Amino acid sequence: MADFENIAKQFVEFYYKTFDSNRSQLASLYGPDSMLSFEAAPSQGVANIVQKLVELPFTRVEHQVATLDAQPSNSQGGILVIVSGALLVEEEKRPMSYTQTFQLLPKDGSYYVFNDVFRLVYPAA
Amino acid sequence: MADFENIAKQFVEFYYKTFDSNRSQLASLYGPDSMLSFEAAPSQGVANIVQKLVELPFTRVEHQVATLDAQPSNSQGGILVIVSGALLVEEEKRPMSYTQTFQLLPKDGSYYVFNDVFRLVYPAA
Repeated sequence: MADFENIAKQFVEFYYKTFDSNRSQLASLYGPDSMLSFEAAPSQGVANIVQKLVELPFTRVEHQVATLDAQPSNSQGGILVIVSGALLVEEEKRPMSYTQTFQLLPKDGSYYVFNDVFRLVYPAA
Repeated sequence: MADFENIAKQFVEFYYKTFDSNRSQLASLYGPDSMLSFEAAPSQGVANIVQKLVELPFTRVEHQVATLDAQPSNSQGGILVIVSGALLVEEEKRPMSYTQTFQLLPKDGSYYVFNDVFRLVYPAA
């Protein structure tokens, strides 16, 4: 497995584990120029992004990853990470499908999330 | 609407119009370093990518875009484009949900597709 694929896999595991246990701790993954689009609502920068994530109207949440794709996004070590899966919130028994795209950029020997786009995917009519 | 959003919208319209009418003509949108991941199968470079797309096992195909997100992907004019929607193939009446992520990079006053990741999204169980 190529290096970027390992990094993508590790990132996705860490991201959703943190999201599903204490999403305020996702702050460490973003930077001042990071962009989030959550169901079309835009946020920029660590504080705004974490506020958006923390204020999402659910307490219990579980992400189940179904597919994970990764590609190099530039020649400086950037990685594009695309996830699809299922989302379970609160006591709701019926999961929703979602897709989330990240671009990870290298910083200080690690990575941070530069782009983050989340969408629920409704069943095609 | 920001410039990158207009470009993303125009790109998506052109891409699926071309895909659904004569997908061999998508060659003009890719470059030698372009990457495609189609349902996890990787292709690189114009010739391989177009061969993959042309050989997909359907003749009639229609993409119906449901959501479109765009974000700048770097400081050199790159654009991340994320689509979700429905796919109808052949005489099949039941559409499938899909998601597709592109990174467009500027080249010679226009753009080409550097990253392209396509996935069907199955209804969450």
